[in-house]
Order: sequence, then C-alpha cells, then structure tokens
Amino acid sequence: MKRVYLFITIVLLFTFSQSAQAAVIHKVAPSFWWAGMKNPELQILLYGDNISTSDVYISSKDIVLKEVVKQENPNYLLLYIDLSEATPQTFNIQLKQGKKQTTIPYEIKQREQGAANREGFNSGDVLYLIMPDRFANGIPANDLVPGMLEAKVDRNNSFARHGGDLKGIENHLDYIEDLGVTAIWLNPIQENDMQEGSYHGYAITDYYQVDRRFGTNEDFKQFVDRTHAKGLKVVMDMIFNHCGSENYLFKDMPSKDWFNFKGEYVQTTFQTVTQSDNYATEYAKKLAIDGWFTQVMPDLNQRNRHVETYLTQNSIWWIEYAGINGIRQDTHPYADFEGMADWCKAVNAEYPNFNIVGETWLGSNVLISYWQKDSKLAYPRNSYLPTVMDFPLMGEMNRAFDEETTDWNGGLFRLYEYLSQDVVYTDPMNLLTFLDNHDTSRFYHSDADTKNLNRYKQAMAFLLTTRGIPQIYYGTEILMAADKADGDGSLRADFPGGWQVIRSIALTASSVRQNKTKRLRTCRNCFNGEKGMK
Amino acid sequence: MKRVYLFITIVLLFTFSQSAQAAVIHKVAPSFWWAGMKNPELQILLYGDNISTSDVYISSKDIVLKEVVKQENPNYLLLYIDLSEATPQTFNIQLKQGKKQTTIPYEIKQREQGAANREGFNSGDVLYLIMPDRFANGIPANDLVPGMLEAKVDRNNSFARHGGDLKGIENHLDYIEDLGVTAIWLNPIQENDMQEGSYHGYAITDYYQVDRRFGTNEDFKQFVDRTHAKGLKVVMDMIFNHCGSENYLFKDMPSKDWFNFKGEYVQTTFQTVTQSDNYATEYAKKLAIDGWFTQVMPDLNQRNRHVETYLTQNSIWWIEYAGINGIRQDTHPYADFEGMADWCKAVNAEYPNFNIVGETWLGSNVLISYWQKDSKLAYPRNSYLPTVMDFPLMGEMNRAFDEETTDWNGGLFRLYEYLSQDVVYTDPMNLLTFLDNHDTSRFYHSDADTKNLNRYKQAMAFLLTTRGIPQIYYGTEILMAADKADGDGSLRADFPGGWQVIRSIALTASSVRQNKTKRLRTCRNCFNGEKGMK
Repeated sequence: MKRVYLFITIVLLFTFSQSAQAAVIHKVAPSFWWAGMKNPELQILLYGDNISTSDVYISSKDIVLKEVVKQENPNYLLLYIDLSEATPQTFNIQLKQGKKQTTIPYEIKQREQGAANREGFNSGDVLYLIMPDRFANGIPANDLVPGMLEAKVDRNNSFARHGGDLKGIENHLDYIEDLGVTAIWLNPIQENDMQEGSYHGYAITDYYQVDRRFGTNEDFKQFVDRTHAKGLKVVMDMIFNHCGSENYLFKDMPSKDWFNFKGEYVQTTFQTVTQSDNYATEYAKKLAIDGWFTQVMPDLNQRNRHVETYLTQNSIWWIEYAGINGIRQDTHPYADFEGMADWCKAVNAEYPNFNIVGETWLGSNVLISYWQKDSKLAYPRNSYLPTVMDFPLMGEMNRAFDEETTDWNGGLFRLYEYLSQDVVYTDPMNLLTFLDNHDTSRFYHSDADTKNLNRYKQAMAFLLTTRGIPQIYYGTEILMAADKADGDGSLRADFPGGWQVIRSIALTASSVRQNKTKRLRTCRNCFNGEKGMK
Repeated sequence: MKRVYLFITIVLLFTFSQSAQAAVIHKVAPSFWWAGMKNPELQILLYGDNISTSDVYISSKDIVLKEVVKQENPNYLLLYIDLSEATPQTFNIQLKQGKKQTTIPYEIKQREQGAANREGFNSGDVLYLIMPDRFANGIPANDLVPGMLEAKVDRNNSFARHGGDLKGIENHLDYIEDLGVTAIWLNPIQENDMQEGSYHGYAITDYYQVDRRFGTNEDFKQFVDRTHAKGLKVVMDMIFNHCGSENYLFKDMPSKDWFNFKGEYVQTTFQTVTQSDNYATEYAKKLAIDGWFTQVMPDLNQRNRHVETYLTQNSIWWIEYAGINGIRQDTHPYADFEGMADWCKAVNAEYPNFNIVGETWLGSNVLISYWQKDSKLAYPRNSYLPTVMDFPLMGEMNRAFDEETTDWNGGLFRLYEYLSQDVVYTDPMNLLTFLDNHDTSRFYHSDADTKNLNRYKQAMAFLLTTRGIPQIYYGTEILMAADKADGDGSLRADFPGGWQVIRSIALTASSVRQNKTKRLRTCRNCFNGEKGMK
C-alpha cells in the first residue's frame, strides 16, 4: 500500500515539475514551412496538454502573428501567421501560461529552385499505380514497427499488411522505367496507424507522416528524387474527405465541428450523384457528402475554415517537401464541393503547372464532366479540379473487346459511342483513363480469362493511344487477374518477385528468362516486349 | 394518218395560241400571304413553262419587288418582295416575255386577331400522336383520288394506304378529348403523291397542299378549329430534311443546288452523332447530313438561301393559315444545323409563344441536349430548337418496369439514374417524353405481353407525372401491341373502330360497353377510366 502512495507521489511530482517548466506538445503541424510562398499566411496547429489558455509570442520581427484561435478542446491552439516579409530562418513560438513557459522552435526553410514551377503529370504521361504494401518488400525490418496498433504481418491474409515499402519500389525503378511508363502513382503512404485493414492507406492517422512501415518522410523524399532521376514523375494519393478513426484529430478532436455530424457516425448513402442532381433534396445532398464512408473513417468538415486550411497546407507541404508532380484525391465528390474547389485553386495558385486528379467514381460522362474544372454543366459552380477519372470509359473498355459488335451496338461501337460524346467534357485530354485500379476487378477476372490475349492487346493498344492520361495498375503487365467478387484484398495481390522468398519469380531479368509459365511468356510477347521484362 | 396530222396541228395551234397570251404557271408558292408579319420579306416561287426570261412587274404601289432571281432551270422564277407597307389586298404579278403576258393575282390577307400570340404546346399538355392514314376513315370517297400515283387502297397490306383521313379524326374528337389528352400531333398530312409506301406522310410532294386522301387544306383548317373548340391543341409534322422524289422541286429542280450531292442519291450514314463529335472528320459530318435518307427522299440543301426561305415560309404559312400550336420537325439533326437554327429563330420571331419539337433520335442525354436551344454543350453554336425528344428516356422506361432492381442498377433505378443527370439539359421541362411512337416498337411488343398490366400502369403513371411533355401514341390506351421486328407497318395498325366494317369494335361508347375482350376491359380499368372509353 505504501509503495502505491509513493508511486503516485512520484508521478504527481514529476508531472507538476514538468508542467511548471513547459507544456507537453504532441504535434506541431506542419512542423516547418517555407519562405516565399505565394500565399503568405500559415496556420500552425499546436496540439498539447491544456495549452489553449496560453499567451502566444513569436520571436521573429519579420513574422506577424495574426490570429490565435482556441477550439472547444483545451489541447489545441491554432496560430495564423503572416510570412509576407519572412526570410528563411528558425524562430521560436513561445507559449506562456502562468509560470509555465514552452518554447517551440519553428523553421522557415528556403525553397528549392524552381519549386513553384514543378511539372504535373499530363496526357504525355502513362501512370503506373502501385499499392505500396503489395509491390515489393525492400526492408523486412520495418514490416512491424513497435508501438503501432496493427501488430502483425501476414501475407496469407489479404486484409493484413504484407510488408511492401518505399524501398521495395525504389529497388525496382529500373523495372518500372523499362515498362515505358512515365509516372508512378502510389496509393497513400501517409501514416495509417489503425488496428487492422489499413494496408491500403486510406485511413490516415497523421497527415504529415509517412507510415513507418513504408519508410520515413526522408525515405519518401529520396524515393521521389530517385524516381525523378529516372525521368519518372510521382503522384501522391491524398484523402481529404475522411481520416482514420485513430487520427489524433478525431480521437481528441479540436472541436466537434471538425467532423461532419459533429463527430458521430452516420453512414453516407454513396449517392454523390445528388451533388449535381437538379431534383435531389438538401437532405439527400447532405447525407451523401457529410455521411461517413465507414465507421472507422470519420468524415472531415471542409466547411470549417481551420480544417480546410489544415488540409490545403498539408498538400502544399508534401508538394514542396517531397517534390511530387501530382495528387490523386480520394473520394473527391464526397467532400464539400466549395471546400475542394478552394483547395484546387490554392494548389494551382502555388503551382500553376501542377496537376490533380480526383477520384470521380460516377456512372456517366455527364456526371464525371460536372466535376472537371470549368465544366459548362456545373457553371456557375466550378470545381477547379483539372483532371477527373474516366470511370465510364473503364466500363466500356472492359466490355468492348470481347463482345460482338452489331451495326449500332456493343463491342468496339461502345468506344465510338462514348468518345463521340466528349463534347460534354471541358478538357477530354485531362481525363485519367484506365482498365482497372485497386478498387475494381482487374481487366482479367481469372487466370483462365488470360487465354484471350487478343482482348488484352486490343485494350492496351486502345488505352495507350486514346485521349486522356492512361493509368496502368501494377501487375497488369504480367496479366495478374482478380475479381472484386473475391474481396478487395484479391485486387491487391503481392507482385511476384517483390518478396525474398519468391524473388525468383519476377522482377529480375534472369528469373523472367528462366520462367516458363504461360503468364510471363505471354506478357513478354505482348505488352512491353522483351525490354519490359529483360 | 390524216387524223393524226390534224390532231397534232390542233395541239400545236392550241399550245401556240395559249403561249402567245400567257405562260403556263404550275405552281405559285405560297399561293397567298398576310400583311403585318414581323418579317416583311416574302419569297414567291413561280413554277411555269420557260418563264425565267420574263420581265416581272408588281401592280401594287405599296409593295416593293426587291429581287427577281433566276435559277438554272428556266421554269422557275423567285420573287422577293417587301411587304413593310402593304395593307391587305390582291395585287397582280405580271410576267412579260415578248408578246406573252401572264397575270398572276396574288392575295395579301388580313391576319386573324391574336395570330402572332398563338400558344404552343408545353409541359402542361399531353400529346396524342395519330397516323392519319390509320386512325379512322371519315370519308371513304377520298380513299382513292384520280390522278394520284398510288392507285390502290388495301387494308390487308401494312405498306399500302388504308383510307384514314382528317374527317375520321374529327369525327372522334369526343373520344380523344375524353382520354384526357390536350393536344393532337398528326403525322404529316402534306401531299405525298408517291408510287407507294407513302401512307406515313414523310415523302412530301407539295409542301403547301394537304394530301387529298386526307382532305383539303380547308378541311385541315376546319379540323384545327374544331379541335381548338374542344380545348385541344394541334401539332403539325414537318419535314425539311428531305422531300419525296415525286416533288416537282426535285423532278424538275430549280437548280442542282436545291438538293445535297447535286440531286444525286448518296446514302446517309445515319451517324448524326458526328454533328456534335469533337473527333468526326468533315467528310463524316457531311455524309451524315447531306446523304439521303432513302433513294426516294432527296435531301434538301438548307444552305441554299432560297431553299431555306422556301421551307421557313412554308412553316409560317401553315401556322398562320391553319392556326396550329406546334411543329414536330422530322429528322431534325439530319438537316443543316445553321439552317435549322435560322428556321427556329424565324418561327420564334413571328410567334414567340409557339413551340417546336425536333426529332432528335440519338442515344444519350449528352447527344440530345446538344440540340436543345441554348445548350451549354453546343455553345457557341445554338440550335434555337426549344424542345427535343427524350429518346434515351424512352429506352429506360421500356426496360425499367419489368426488370429487377438491384441496389445500384436496373429496374426503377434506371429512371433515377437518368433523371439525376438532367443538369445536362438546358430545359428539362421542354423534353418530349414517350414510351413509343410510330417508328418504334410499341410499349407492348405482343398481345401476350399485355398480361403484365402492372408494367403498363407503372409506366403510364411515370410518363404522365415526370418532367417534360408526355406524348402517347394512338392505340396505347387500348393496349395495342407491335414489334418493330415485324416491320414499320405493324407499328401503325388501324385503330379498331375507325372503319365502317369494324366500327362496332371501338370508338363508340356502346360498343365498348358491350365488348368483352380482355384488351378493352383491361383498358377501361387502368388508363383513363370509364370516362375515357364511355
């Protein structure tokens, strides 16, 4: 009993003595910034124990503290500073709370030369989409990171983490370059510190942190640099509609207004068509976009200016920090239309040559076109989203090449019929075109299907020559097959050769030459020729 | 032999003596006009033997002869006169050719009060579409008209004339009124003096003449007046894309430039989608709209200003003369876009409250919407066509009511999916909506289908309550069934009761009450109730 009292006393003393000196700061987001950005305003989110009553001081003379905003949660402070006249420097943010003083050094970096003019992906590119957990395991040592919630790696479970990482991809840049593609789109690499099922990356728990099972922020920057050195671009996946339920911003939310339905789970109807539907009720519109994707993906409220700024800055931070060439925005129409439009405008203002593609998973060209920048149908609304995903064309391509064509219907006529309606699009060249992606059945649903190789050749020839920006899903080049009916995990099978135990199967030239399976021989003959699989 | 010489001498003398006095004039088009039209210019087409070298004089002081235009054919003269200051009157057009003098009296009528403000059909209406040859035979005596080319009536041949006429429809205006519809759209009633197969009316041989097998021009005017007296509107079918090959304007064409491909038959591809296709070649565009519908339907060249004016005046003449409330323009996208736009503008300028619906038979809402006035997609082009036909909705409605609905596809979901894209239309209320018409399979393909009466009830309830202007094809109310696979004639079966021999079957109240067939009992219970069939 005495030992218990002693322990409590020690804990209290320790806590008190520490708090008497400085507050515990858990997060500073972003952790640094740059001088000379076009938008001189910077929001700095401070997350620390009971810091909201602090007085805030800035040590720099050429930086103006414009606003200090408290939220309903005492653990947050939002600083808005003006960097109009700031030079690169490190200054101090000082929090004073009675006797408690906290000093947070903050760096304003020098921008890299030409940073504002970095080139986005465009119709001159071919994107290669990789799910980082499933392509190649470069560093087995980071498969499990102590302290992270999902404490297992299991390649026999398609729902679990498999150990793929940035280094694994980096190790095979030669292979990717040889395919002839010109850009890599990675499914999200941001931290997904969730209990389970987050291998895909769409439940972000820290917007500013690469998931440590994929590597560090510095590893990602290096990955981008090395990919650039190959002449390839990098497209980063972002998710502004929702985060993972283990995100500190949700677990200890700044205010209920950061999340839709005040942070309470209400299911989305998935009917984003309501956003452009003349006849939809306000309630149907709200439920579709404010409803949550799943219970573990709380829906962020972009109408809250602090949320909007947090997300916008995050994207600019990654562009500036890692030098990426594009963003793929997840579930774009599920977020607030105006909020997302403002985000696109902000990114475009900083990087006029950059590109963003939104995941516009809707059923027709009318609906897709509504979401593209300067859409005539949306006018006077404007999404400012330069590129949209051509999901309807995906549907037509998947049916066109093994269906009989009559005079007016079916088969190849589908493609003519669809493309002949491109007048609906403001910019048909800024459509992302694809046969499949990580959320759909692969072009081949089963290995048996792959016997119809003409279908594949025709589809590839069409995809790579029609208008738009073609995207190829990893494994397509070796005829990987999958059916969504078998679960999403099946769509995201490990790329053969990416793991030591089966390294002999693919990814090295000699292994391919030795391999006698129909799949690889077929591939060598059809898609990228011997060069691709050398 | 002597008798032959004598005969020839008499003929020559007669011919000479006549030509010494006056030219033989076959057509004056239009045959009269009105004072006080907004457009003061009038084209008068004169068709007579070798009249082109005539000097032309006008006897009226307040009418200005602006232009006398010769064509390559000496049998034509086109006069353009200015009626800005003309009062109602009859004046003379005098042709002088050497000793030959020809006097053509020409009447400028007084307009009826309110003529300029006649009300068009709109979304407050329900149109009832009737094929005049197939609804009811009011005057058996006009079934065969001496001198007309098709010298037979055969109700056993679906390709032949059956004897229906305007009087037949007029006799049953009570029945039509009782159905609850508010407007009658007639398939073309203009003269179709063709060898065969013109019962449908789409091969016009004289734009200014009602086909005498349907009645006279005066009969049509009376029909419109009596229909108006019932509170019903009348929509007239017009065809500007092509005429019948027996039209004098083709048989003895003013100039080769009146017809596309210089009057030589070249088949259209039917690919009117080329007109809005970003990628179509100029040749594909030309072939689609300048190609002929069939060899016996020469394709008029609306880019020829004389043709354009001839057609435009013709439509205005019918509106002014007969007092119709709307025009249904056949094969609208097959004619010259600008020519048709100018026509729509001209009609709208004369009659601001009038309505025109174009037959826009295209496969998607994108393509249909392109043809509607002020289309955002067509901009800066503008068709000025107020109403377009919602063919895609026809397709969806024909599938929606007997198909299983899954969460996201098929069945009633088709209707939601389609309507939720109405943002593509400039004016969704100005869409003509229909389950079928004279060119499509009927809603029921066979009598056996009619057992599924719920399908019919649902479709009718939807058609009559959704946005747009509903149109019902004659016979729908008694569940007439037909499949296009059985030929177009099958779609245009005689309405039961419209002919004396079977008058007892329908169209009289007592016959219906006595009738025990499933078809009529069913109908009495479902569509328009007892009132409709009383």
